[in-house]
Amino acid sequence: MGGDSDRSLMELAAGVEARDRRALARAITLVESNRAADRSAADRLIEKLLPATGHALRLGISGPPGVGKSTFIEAFGLHLVQAGHCLAVLAIDPSSRVSGGSILGDKTRMAELARHASAFIRPSPAGETLGGVARRTREAMLVCEAAGFDIVMIETVGVGQSETAVADMVDLFLLLVQPGGGDDLQGIKRGIVELADLVIVTKSDGPLEPIAGRTAADYQAALRLLRPAAEGAVAVREVSAVSGKGIDTLWQAVEAAAKAAEASGTRAARRAAQAKTWLWSELSESLLAALKAHPEVAGRLPELETQVACGRVSPPAAAQALLAAFRKG
Amino acid sequence: MGGDSDRSLMELAAGVEARDRRALARAITLVESNRAADRSAADRLIEKLLPATGHALRLGISGPPGVGKSTFIEAFGLHLVQAGHCLAVLAIDPSSRVSGGSILGDKTRMAELARHASAFIRPSPAGETLGGVARRTREAMLVCEAAGFDIVMIETVGVGQSETAVADMVDLFLLLVQPGGGDDLQGIKRGIVELADLVIVTKSDGPLEPIAGRTAADYQAALRLLRPAAEGAVAVREVSAVSGKGIDTLWQAVEAAAKAAEASGTRAARRAAQAKTWLWSELSESLLAALKAHPEVAGRLPELETQVACGRVSPPAAAQALLAAFRKG
Repeated sequence: MGGDSDRSLMELAAGVEARDRRALARAITLVESNRAADRSAADRLIEKLLPATGHALRLGISGPPGVGKSTFIEAFGLHLVQAGHCLAVLAIDPSSRVSGGSILGDKTRMAELARHASAFIRPSPAGETLGGVARRTREAMLVCEAAGFDIVMIETVGVGQSETAVADMVDLFLLLVQPGGGDDLQGIKRGIVELADLVIVTKSDGPLEPIAGRTAADYQAALRLLRPAAEGAVAVREVSAVSGKGIDTLWQAVEAAAKAAEASGTRAARRAAQAKTWLWSELSESLLAALKAHPEVAGRLPELETQVACGRVSPPAAAQALLAAFRKG
Repeated sequence: MGGDSDRSLMELAAGVEARDRRALARAITLVESNRAADRSAADRLIEKLLPATGHALRLGISGPPGVGKSTFIEAFGLHLVQAGHCLAVLAIDPSSRVSGGSILGDKTRMAELARHASAFIRPSPAGETLGGVARRTREAMLVCEAAGFDIVMIETVGVGQSETAVADMVDLFLLLVQPGGGDDLQGIKRGIVELADLVIVTKSDGPLEPIAGRTAADYQAALRLLRPAAEGAVAVREVSAVSGKGIDTLWQAVEAAAKAAEASGTRAARRAAQAKTWLWSELSESLLAALKAHPEVAGRLPELETQVACGRVSPPAAAQALLAAFRKG
């Protein structure tokens, strides 16, 4: 798609804005592409779509494996589309490095939601670098916004580096936890719980319901302690995808938080800061990519990294050597 | 000092390794300098000192304003030097942008410790960028290690961005909190509590003592919930700089944790990962500094940053424009 003429990009942009599913899928494939020619077309597409973006509520959803993310998103998502919302779900999938590899799996995961006319579910491949994932996900989010989805959810599996990046591109960051103790956070990066705007205890049904209640109370107490009161209390909610418990009140809480953030100007301030962060990570990623691609740097990097790791060369000295090699080219 | 000959650098390195206080002060001033010529001399000095580094226990100490950091460090530090240790304290001071500006203030803060022959206290100016602070602090730490201090403490005021950087350069990260609730964390960046290896409740004396006890229990419960059991429990301790309560047992806990991390290999693994992180932040900082220093980039940056913040230009497009301007030069 690298040779896209302006005309075909105009058509693609128009297709996205008309919420044509094939155009939407093509546009996301374009922004996810690693090919240099596609990158330029993707940049132009995003520029064209930009005026139509910014109107969706952006939700990050994370949680450790086994917490029931898909089940929760299907139940919560169905509630939203049945209430008249248009919902896009972007899932960052670390198990897939090629686009499309796990779409089928994902559609099976959320079968009923995926079939709904007002829902769009799309897994994103994890890619090579965190910066790459972040850029592609941000751009896919903008594409969905331009397509008129009024709620965009970004799901992360919660085991890696992507949570902080996701928390830095959404309006509200929701963390799912299981009934039980801290052991269930296995794999969640430290610091993530404190980033959450809303903690959701899943599986609050049957024999787990009383345990979920205690877990919710424990998190409420912990988060009250770990965050200054001035930042506002973090809501902790119990939900059950099986009984539907808490799903509608959860949406009320999310909507109320979103409206308050919009009215107070904190949403606009957060988004402006996020855009600047994005700019600086783009710059940093691009410069580091150019450095790594330089033949002489690429030749010396593995050895120097090893020397640095075992303390034989200081990081500044290794950096100077690599930068000198880079400047020669 | 930019024109330092190899001979004068050799003398400076020898002075540092002999723990000559004037040489130590000069060496730290050199690594803290922003002058390009000093930078090259600093790099060479660090290379010379590198074989003598790595033997100290590196402790990060943070906490919100008013928690009693100086009082704690003086009490804890005096206990350590009286037990035969040699202690260097590096304080990242955001109020001072010129080296030396607050040395007097700092010496007054920890008057008794500062006078002790086995202690060395040095505030570092906060500097322009977080990357700059991190680099200078890491290098000052290496200088102190080469001078034979067996414990190096890095103190941050805890209100800014520096905690994560400090947590990423030490063996153990100690967070001080006040008796009371989460309100006292005002200003502490989210995610910091979860980074702590040890939480220390200060002022556990007089009428505050029972409150400190409850606060310690609350943090213990919160941290048990927020961290998987596999990572090991976070110790929470109460101390009083007035009565000396908890100071000696705190050192036993720190020493035991340090020995366990050394025996299990986690300290070596953590330091290797920290060295790699340092290398990559050096590279990223240097490349971004070169970008910002480019006249055409500098001319366009403020306007583009504003456009990005208010959503008129997408971050990737702004990044492409700046990178194109940079490559032209």
